[in-house]
Amino acid sequence: MEYRKIKDEDKQEDGEDDIENLRGKALSVGVPLINAGSLGGVGDRAQWKRKSVVTLALTVLTSSQAILIVWSKRAGKYDYSVTTANFMVETLKCLLSLAALSRIWRNEGVTDDNRLSTTFDEVIVYPVPAALYLVKNLLQYYIFAYVDAPGYQILKNFNIISTGVLYRIILKRKLSEIQWAAFILLCAGCTTAQLNSSSDRVLQTPLQGWIMAIVMALLSGFAGVYTEAIMKKRFSRNINVQNFWLYVFGMIFNAVAIVIQDFDAVVNKGFFHGYSFITVLMIVNHALSGIAVSMVMKYADNIVKVYSTSVAMLLTAIVSMFLFGFHLSLAFFLGSTVVSVSVYLHSIGKLQR
Amino acid sequence: MEYRKIKDEDKQEDGEDDIENLRGKALSVGVPLINAGSLGGVGDRAQWKRKSVVTLALTVLTSSQAILIVWSKRAGKYDYSVTTANFMVETLKCLLSLAALSRIWRNEGVTDDNRLSTTFDEVIVYPVPAALYLVKNLLQYYIFAYVDAPGYQILKNFNIISTGVLYRIILKRKLSEIQWAAFILLCAGCTTAQLNSSSDRVLQTPLQGWIMAIVMALLSGFAGVYTEAIMKKRFSRNINVQNFWLYVFGMIFNAVAIVIQDFDAVVNKGFFHGYSFITVLMIVNHALSGIAVSMVMKYADNIVKVYSTSVAMLLTAIVSMFLFGFHLSLAFFLGSTVVSVSVYLHSIGKLQR
Repeated sequence: MEYRKIKDEDKQEDGEDDIENLRGKALSVGVPLINAGSLGGVGDRAQWKRKSVVTLALTVLTSSQAILIVWSKRAGKYDYSVTTANFMVETLKCLLSLAALSRIWRNEGVTDDNRLSTTFDEVIVYPVPAALYLVKNLLQYYIFAYVDAPGYQILKNFNIISTGVLYRIILKRKLSEIQWAAFILLCAGCTTAQLNSSSDRVLQTPLQGWIMAIVMALLSGFAGVYTEAIMKKRFSRNINVQNFWLYVFGMIFNAVAIVIQDFDAVVNKGFFHGYSFITVLMIVNHALSGIAVSMVMKYADNIVKVYSTSVAMLLTAIVSMFLFGFHLSLAFFLGSTVVSVSVYLHSIGKLQR
Repeated sequence: MEYRKIKDEDKQEDGEDDIENLRGKALSVGVPLINAGSLGGVGDRAQWKRKSVVTLALTVLTSSQAILIVWSKRAGKYDYSVTTANFMVETLKCLLSLAALSRIWRNEGVTDDNRLSTTFDEVIVYPVPAALYLVKNLLQYYIFAYVDAPGYQILKNFNIISTGVLYRIILKRKLSEIQWAAFILLCAGCTTAQLNSSSDRVLQTPLQGWIMAIVMALLSGFAGVYTEAIMKKRFSRNINVQNFWLYVFGMIFNAVAIVIQDFDAVVNKGFFHGYSFITVLMIVNHALSGIAVSMVMKYADNIVKVYSTSVAMLLTAIVSMFLFGFHLSLAFFLGSTVVSVSVYLHSIGKLQR
């Protein structure tokens, strides 16, 4: 695959740039013409506003996602099959993209940028993120042989580091020294906030468990970075068209997952077996969050996404304290402090670059 | 008391500066003529070397102090009275200062800067730190009515913040934004490293406990900042003379503490009751650490002292792991990571100021 170098936000020039070969096929990633950092002209301001809105939306949706999960656990166990729910999420995202597109077609007419039809060159990149997530989700079943669920939650914080490293290596975007320090702090702070009395068990994870956790973090980080590359490559392309193609392949890969994992359950009990009002709410929420992620990838970047979801994790805990009477630990307070300082350092690190 | 403004290291000019009234008596703090930050000329290099050596000495001595405490606890309980041990520490420091002075007198003769005799104006400031520590140590007996010993260890991390704030307010030295962020991280990181399964109990501390912890942190921070002001006020004065007077008052105030707290024990069992080889080792170590603290105050500053003792705490845990087979927790690992990033940020924050 062939990437165009995505340049640093502060060094943007118009149009074409030097081309870097990464794997020798045709994914040419266009220069993202958004200046996310500065606040200069009117266009910059509009871009900054859009970036802020999508980031806020992602944070709120991610928080409410986690709260719905807590709520559903409290309400009792649901035995719907997760793969069918994931399939429904992709289908709903696809339908929402189509709905948005049909409104755009009605208002603006069909143009080169918003037509659904596509070339092989354009469409070939869209299955990649969905395929990566499928592999990651399948691995998830095997990692539990080596580590328990709370331990896995802690190991998942490797995602933060892997995203930062792959963002640097693949998208060739630079983070300042302070921003790297902030990123390490974000990882340490999130992990600290999740500490509880049984967390130390994760240190006894066997080597296979560590390797799988790192591989899963790399898969997930690579999928995120690859999605950003896709969204920004043809920046003028309407985001709903890009989403449509992403989600179509999401549907296909999740259909495969249903066959692999839940075929018997679906045949015997039916596709929507075990669905309840809260399941539907969770599907709607996941779909909206997914669209927010796409928008953050297009109008902001993976770093913003990581910060957004990390802050959402903290918000979730605080909201859960009020809603469900959760007890906030000293570790949570310390971790939140470190994450807050990290957010602050990331923002001043940008200015000082 | 009357302070001269101690100026930022990077803005040093020679000699006199504007005078600020703080409390309306006569402690005029001279401008510290050491450029601790830069590495320019030969003099700067020598100063930087001296600063590094005293900082390293403090770190090593503080670590070994904590290890001696662990060792003494493992070896069984000692029932010597702590106040007599403190008195012996002050006495030993006093004797060591005199020994150093007598060598200097033999080599260089008695000058204005190394003579022991002093004026009322000079000597009046020396009892202040010792008095503050006495009050703090007496309060320590009362705080245990509200919080247990591990909880008190956690609350002691307020010292880090109080030292930073008082350093800024009283010595009028500026820390950059990044250095403030680093300081908050140092406090959060040290606390995280000390977390264990019972740490959350500290959150149930009643209001009186919090207030006492904050008052104690302010007393200890003020004593540190005041000592730095004394040491730097008459910078040309030989440090051993300054130490001699500091420690003489330390002896006097600790004698008062013996009378208040351990009078009966000393009368009935004798002054050196319960002393052992390890007690003597601890007294020697405390005395050397005390002298290292004085040197850090004179040739570096309170911020360096706080970093030095914090890093020492982490070193202690790592050494204890090898010596005593201590188990390092995930919280310790995360806290150490945050402290390391804090040290890094403090150093780059200095450059970017």
